[in-house]
Amino acid sequence: MLVVMQAHATEEQVRAVCQKIESLGYRAHPMPGATRTAIGITGNQGEVEQGTLEDTPGVQEVIRVSKPYKLVSRDVKEENTVVRFAGTPATIGGKNFAIIAGPCAIETREQAFAVAEAVHRSGAQFFRGGAYKPRTSPYTFQGLGEKGLQIMAEIRDRFGLKIITEAIDNESLELVNEYADVIQIGTRNMQNFSLLKRAGRCRKPVLLKRGMSATLEEFFMAAEYIMSEGNYNVILCERGVRTFADHTRNTLDLSLVPAVQRLSHLPIVVDPSHGTGKRNKVTPMSRAAAAVGADGIIVEVHNQPDKALSDGPQSLYPEQFEELMTQVRQIAAVVGREIVGIGPQSPVSTTLAAATVPTSVR
Amino acid sequence: MLVVMQAHATEEQVRAVCQKIESLGYRAHPMPGATRTAIGITGNQGEVEQGTLEDTPGVQEVIRVSKPYKLVSRDVKEENTVVRFAGTPATIGGKNFAIIAGPCAIETREQAFAVAEAVHRSGAQFFRGGAYKPRTSPYTFQGLGEKGLQIMAEIRDRFGLKIITEAIDNESLELVNEYADVIQIGTRNMQNFSLLKRAGRCRKPVLLKRGMSATLEEFFMAAEYIMSEGNYNVILCERGVRTFADHTRNTLDLSLVPAVQRLSHLPIVVDPSHGTGKRNKVTPMSRAAAAVGADGIIVEVHNQPDKALSDGPQSLYPEQFEELMTQVRQIAAVVGREIVGIGPQSPVSTTLAAATVPTSVR
Amino acid sequence: MLVVMQAHATEEQVRAVCQKIESLGYRAHPMPGATRTAIGITGNQGEVEQGTLEDTPGVQEVIRVSKPYKLVSRDVKEENTVVRFAGTPATIGGKNFAIIAGPCAIETREQAFAVAEAVHRSGAQFFRGGAYKPRTSPYTFQGLGEKGLQIMAEIRDRFGLKIITEAIDNESLELVNEYADVIQIGTRNMQNFSLLKRAGRCRKPVLLKRGMSATLEEFFMAAEYIMSEGNYNVILCERGVRTFADHTRNTLDLSLVPAVQRLSHLPIVVDPSHGTGKRNKVTPMSRAAAAVGADGIIVEVHNQPDKALSDGPQSLYPEQFEELMTQVRQIAAVVGREIVGIGPQSPVSTTLAAATVPTSVR
Amino acid sequence: MLVVMQAHATEEQVRAVCQKIESLGYRAHPMPGATRTAIGITGNQGEVEQGTLEDTPGVQEVIRVSKPYKLVSRDVKEENTVVRFAGTPATIGGKNFAIIAGPCAIETREQAFAVAEAVHRSGAQFFRGGAYKPRTSPYTFQGLGEKGLQIMAEIRDRFGLKIITEAIDNESLELVNEYADVIQIGTRNMQNFSLLKRAGRCRKPVLLKRGMSATLEEFFMAAEYIMSEGNYNVILCERGVRTFADHTRNTLDLSLVPAVQRLSHLPIVVDPSHGTGKRNKVTPMSRAAAAVGADGIIVEVHNQPDKALSDGPQSLYPEQFEELMTQVRQIAAVVGREIVGIGPQSPVSTTLAAATVPTSVR
Repeated sequence: MLVVMQAHATEEQVRAVCQKIESLGYRAHPMPGATRTAIGITGNQGEVEQGTLEDTPGVQEVIRVSKPYKLVSRDVKEENTVVRFAGTPATIGGKNFAIIAGPCAIETREQAFAVAEAVHRSGAQFFRGGAYKPRTSPYTFQGLGEKGLQIMAEIRDRFGLKIITEAIDNESLELVNEYADVIQIGTRNMQNFSLLKRAGRCRKPVLLKRGMSATLEEFFMAAEYIMSEGNYNVILCERGVRTFADHTRNTLDLSLVPAVQRLSHLPIVVDPSHGTGKRNKVTPMSRAAAAVGADGIIVEVHNQPDKALSDGPQSLYPEQFEELMTQVRQIAAVVGREIVGIGPQSPVSTTLAAATVPTSVR
Repeated sequence: MLVVMQAHATEEQVRAVCQKIESLGYRAHPMPGATRTAIGITGNQGEVEQGTLEDTPGVQEVIRVSKPYKLVSRDVKEENTVVRFAGTPATIGGKNFAIIAGPCAIETREQAFAVAEAVHRSGAQFFRGGAYKPRTSPYTFQGLGEKGLQIMAEIRDRFGLKIITEAIDNESLELVNEYADVIQIGTRNMQNFSLLKRAGRCRKPVLLKRGMSATLEEFFMAAEYIMSEGNYNVILCERGVRTFADHTRNTLDLSLVPAVQRLSHLPIVVDPSHGTGKRNKVTPMSRAAAAVGADGIIVEVHNQPDKALSDGPQSLYPEQFEELMTQVRQIAAVVGREIVGIGPQSPVSTTLAAATVPTSVR
Repeated sequence: MLVVMQAHATEEQVRAVCQKIESLGYRAHPMPGATRTAIGITGNQGEVEQGTLEDTPGVQEVIRVSKPYKLVSRDVKEENTVVRFAGTPATIGGKNFAIIAGPCAIETREQAFAVAEAVHRSGAQFFRGGAYKPRTSPYTFQGLGEKGLQIMAEIRDRFGLKIITEAIDNESLELVNEYADVIQIGTRNMQNFSLLKRAGRCRKPVLLKRGMSATLEEFFMAAEYIMSEGNYNVILCERGVRTFADHTRNTLDLSLVPAVQRLSHLPIVVDPSHGTGKRNKVTPMSRAAAAVGADGIIVEVHNQPDKALSDGPQSLYPEQFEELMTQVRQIAAVVGREIVGIGPQSPVSTTLAAATVPTSVR
Repeated sequence: MLVVMQAHATEEQVRAVCQKIESLGYRAHPMPGATRTAIGITGNQGEVEQGTLEDTPGVQEVIRVSKPYKLVSRDVKEENTVVRFAGTPATIGGKNFAIIAGPCAIETREQAFAVAEAVHRSGAQFFRGGAYKPRTSPYTFQGLGEKGLQIMAEIRDRFGLKIITEAIDNESLELVNEYADVIQIGTRNMQNFSLLKRAGRCRKPVLLKRGMSATLEEFFMAAEYIMSEGNYNVILCERGVRTFADHTRNTLDLSLVPAVQRLSHLPIVVDPSHGTGKRNKVTPMSRAAAAVGADGIIVEVHNQPDKALSDGPQSLYPEQFEELMTQVRQIAAVVGREIVGIGPQSPVSTTLAAATVPTSVR
C-alpha cells in the first residue's frame, strides 16, 4: 500500500499519517519527492483498510502496489535515488558516473596505499577492498579483518576516497558499518536475509550485488529486505550471472541496467571485473557499462596482479586503469554523465566521523 | 596433506600424530576406516614438510591431496560415511534408504501433528519442517521460530521421527542445534561461509543443500567448510538447479548422485519437491532418485496443501505420499536398499537428550 | 480447432468431415481413439467458423485448442501413441520398455556387427548407429554415409533389430527413409524446420531429440512441424540440456518425462549417453529413466570404446551394457513395464521391405 | 597446419605451394596479409609431413595450429577481415561501424519500402528483412519467399542499401545467394552443418548468428565449416543466449565481442533486438555494442510495430531508430569508428549484378 500526500501537505501532516499507520500495527516509510511525499506501508498481510487513511488531512490517495517489491519500485518513488556523501561532490546516482576502484583484498598497508594512490591519481572517487573475503575454499586467504578496515580508513583520510567494503556476517557488519562509507553485501549473501535485515538497520548506504543466478525480481526483493528496515540508500550492482558460456568467468548482463531503471528508482553500478574474470575484457565492458547508462563501475586494480592473493587474473595494472578512465570519461560524456573530481590528497588526516555520514536526497 | 596410518597402528599412535600436527600449527582430522585410520591435515598453506611426520611411529605414508577439497574426498576416507542416530535403526547412508518427510513450514501444532502422523504411518523415518523460513519477500510468513522447534521436539517424542530443520543465522543455528537431530543449511546459504563454519562447530549432523547454481566442486567446498571445523557428519542434498527450462521450477540434476559417490564418501539425498516445484512430478522423481542410487529423499507433505502458508503447489497429499512410499520401497529393493521401520508411535515421551545424540561410524 | 466425432460415428462420416475441412482450405488430421475419433484441424489462421462443421452428421462438438501445439496434445488424442513395427513385438510406447543400443557411429562392418551381436544378446530391440554425423568440427569423421546404412540393413536382417539412424539434410533423409526403421532428427536440427517438414512427409516413425536449450513448448512445436505434415509417429527423446554444471557434459532433465506425459500422447525415451557424456553415469541414469516412467532408453555401446571414432568416453563396454540390462529390467518391472524379447538372430536374411513397414495404433 | 610464405614470395610461388598441398590430398586456403601470405591447410587427419612443404621455394615455415578452428584464427590471418561491397563505402569490419536495419519480416512492398525509406534517411547502410522465417510454430506466418527477395532487390536499387536476408535450407539459399548481398544463417541453423557447407560454396558474404546456447568455440567451428569450403567472408553476430534470466527474452552477451576479437580476425556485429526482445532496451544496448567495440549492429525497425506479423514488441518505431542513430554515432566516434554515408536514394535502378559482387580484402 502507498499513501500519496497532497502537494501542499505539511511535514506535520506527513508525521501524523505515519503515526496513524504505525498505530495500525504497520510500518511507515516516508519518501519525500520533488513535488510531493509518498508513504510506503509495509508489514501488512493483505490490504490495509483504506478508509481511515484517506480521510486523514493532507492525504491525496491511497493506492495498492501490486508488485511484490514496494519500496524499491518507481510506483512509490518516481525520482531517481541519489546517494550522497558528506565532504565530496561524488554521488552514486545523479549526474556523476561513479568510479569505484581498488584491489580485491587488502593484503598489506603498502599494497593498499600503492593501489589507492594510483586509482586516486587516475580519478577514482571510491576505494574498494576486501577485509573479509568470502572464499570458496576454507583453506585460502580470508582477509585481514579489522586491520584491513583500519588501513582503508587511513586511505580515506589521506586521499579523500570514500570506502566500500564487504560485510559477510553480523560481526563484520558491525565493524564495516563503523569504518566504511558504503557496506557491500556480496553475491553469495544476496539471499542471506538475516544479514540483509541487519544491513537495513545500519545507517550507511548498502551496495548489494546480484546473486549468481538471481532474477531481477529476486534482486529487487533482496533490496526490499534492506529498505523494509528503514535504510533507503541501496545501490544495486550487476556483476555477471552464471551460464553455460565459458569464454568469461560469468556472463555480464548489461541489459539489467535499463531493466532496473525502468522499474526502480535505485542506482545501479556494474562490476566488469567479476563480470568477466579476465583483465583484457574489463576496459571494453567498462565502456559498455557507461554507454548503456549505468550509474558507475566497480573495478579491481592491483599494483602487482601476478602476486595478488585473490583474483589476480581479473585485476588491472594501474596504467590499464588510467587508460580505462580516459575512455570511460568520453563515453560517459556522450550519455550526459561526468566523472566529478574529488580533489588532491590531504596532507593531514581529517576526522573519520565527519567524513562518513552519508546523506541521501530522495 | 593426508597421513595414512599403518593397519596395526594403535590409538595412542594416532593421537601422537595428531598432536604433532597440531604442534606444527595445523589442524588434524582423524578418520577411522575399516582397515586403517587416515588423518587429514588442514590449515596449511602449501605443503607440510613430510619428513617429520613420516618418521613418527605408526605412520605408513604422507600423501599430497591435489583436489581443493580434502576431508570430503574419498582419497581421505574410502568407506562411505553412514550417519547414525541413537535410538533408531534409521541411518542416512548405509543400507537404509532414508525417508525424510513433512511440511514446508510448521504452521500450527495441529497441522504439524497431522502431517507427522500421516508420514509416520506411511513409513517416514525423519520429519522435516521449517521453523525459520528464508523467504524471497520480507512481507511473507517467516516461520514460527522457537515455537516451531518445540512442536517438532514433541513430534519426535510422540512418533520417534528424527527432526531435520533449517538454521538461517547464528541465533537460529543455536536453537536448531539444541532442538533438532539434523541441522539443515539451505540453498541460499550454501556459500554463507560464516554460517557453515558455525555449523561445523555444532555436534549435530548437517544436511547441506546445493546452491541454485553451484558446481559440484563448489558444493564440495561448502561441505569442506563444515568438516574443516570438525563436524564430519555432512549429508549432501541435490534440490534442483536453475536453468532456462520452465516446465519445472528448478531442474533436478540426478546425475549429481553418481558424481558425488565417485569422488566423496558423504551420503547424498534428493529433494524432488523443491527440485520440480510441482506435486505431480514428485513421485516419479522420487522413484528416479531411488533408482539412481541416492541415499534417501526429502519430500514435502501437507495435510491441506491448498491452505499451506508456503510451497503448497509442490506438497503431496498424505495419500499421495502413501502411494509414493509403496513405489519407492520397491525401487529401493532393486538397488539393494531397504527402508527400515522405526516402530509405532510412543505412548509416553522419552527425554529429548537421549534421543538426539547422533553418532557417526566413519 | 478440433472436431470430436460421436462415439457411433461411421468411417464414412469421418471421411466426410475431413473432406469438408479440406474444402474450406484447411488440413484434416483424423486421430482414431478407443471410443471415438477426433479430427485435428490445422492451417487455419485464427478460428474456423464452427457452424458448418457442427451441423455435419456424426460430429459431436467442435472445440478450440488454446495451446500453440495441437496434434501433439492430449486434448486432441487422449490415449498414448504406441509406435509399432511389423515383424516384432517390440513397440515404442505401450507396455514395452524400448531398448535402443549401438555405437555412436558405424565405423566398419566388423565393428557394427560386433556391437550388434553383443547388444542383441543382452536383449536390445533396436540398433542405433550414425551413418551421417553432425560433427562440431568440419575436420573430423563425418560418417560412412550410404555404406553405413547398408551395413545397418544387414544387421536388421541378421539380428532382427530394428534400425534407428540420423538424417541431417534432404539427401540423407531420403536414404535414411529408405533403409532405416526410424528416422532420427538430432539435437542440432531440432529447429531445422525445413528438415522437420520433410520428415513429416516420410512414412517412417521419427525420433526427435530435444535441442540443447529447448523449452518443453519449443520441443512440442518441433514435433508439431512433423505431425502437421501427416506423420503422427513421433518419438520424443530427452538427451540433456546445456547448463552451467560441469560434472556431466549435459544435464539430463528427467523431469521432462512426466511433463511430456501429462500434456502429450507421444512416447518419450531417454538418452543417458549424450545426457551425461560419461560412461560411469550411464547405468545409474538408465535405471532412473526406467523408474521415472520413460518409454525406453537409447544407449551407446562400443566393442572398443577407446578406439571409437566419436564419443568413446560415453560408450559402454558390452559387459557393462549386459549389466545395465539386468538392472533396468528389474526397475522396469516395478513400474509395470517389460522388455519384450525379439527372438534369436536369423540364419537367413529376410527381405527388407516386409520388415520395415511401421504401423501405428493410435 | 599453416604454411607461412616469405615476405618476398611471388604469387607464382604461392600458387605452387597450393598445388603441392592439393596434390597431397588436402585443401589449401591462401590468406594474403599486409606483409606476407599464409596458406591454411585443411582436410588432414593429424599432421601433414612438414619436410616436403618446407623445402618448397618461397616457404618460410610450416607450423601446427593447435586450436580446433584454423581458418577462423588470428594465428592464420593476423589482420582483421574487412568485408567490402561494390559501389558503396560501407564495409563490415574496418573503420566503418555497420548499421543494418529493417523489419523482422518483409510483409508487403509498401511496408518494406516505408521502413527502408526511414532507415535510409537515418543513415542505415544495410537493409535486413526476412523472406524465409524459421518460426517456432508451423501455423504462423512463414515469410513471402522469393517475392520478398524481389522486393528487397528493388529496395537496393532505389536506396543503395545492401541487402541481408536469411536462408533456411538449400532452396532458399540458392535464391538468397542470387538476390541478396549478404546471406544470413540464423541462430537455429548455426549447427546445420549441411547448410553451412553449402553457404561456404556461395560467393556472397555470410552473416552467421550465434546459436542459443553455443560456446565461443562452437561458434568458431560453425564459421570454420563455411570457411573450409572456401568462403572467407564470414561475419559473426552475437544475438543473445538463453539463460534463466527473464527480464529480457535472451541475455545479450557483449563480452563475446572482445573475446572474438582476441582470437579471430572475423568481424562481429551485435543484434540488440533479438538479444533483448524488448523495444525499450534496444537503444541502450546498441550504445553498449558500439562502446564495447563491435563492428556494427543489426536492428529491427517497423513502421507499424503493433501490426507486425512477427517480433513486433522488439521492433523500433522509425523515430526511435533516428534517435538511436544519433546516440550510436557519438559513441562510435569515441572508439575510433564512424558511420559512413551511402548517399541519397537513386532515381534510376542500377543493375543488380554490378551492385552485389562482394570483394573482400584480407
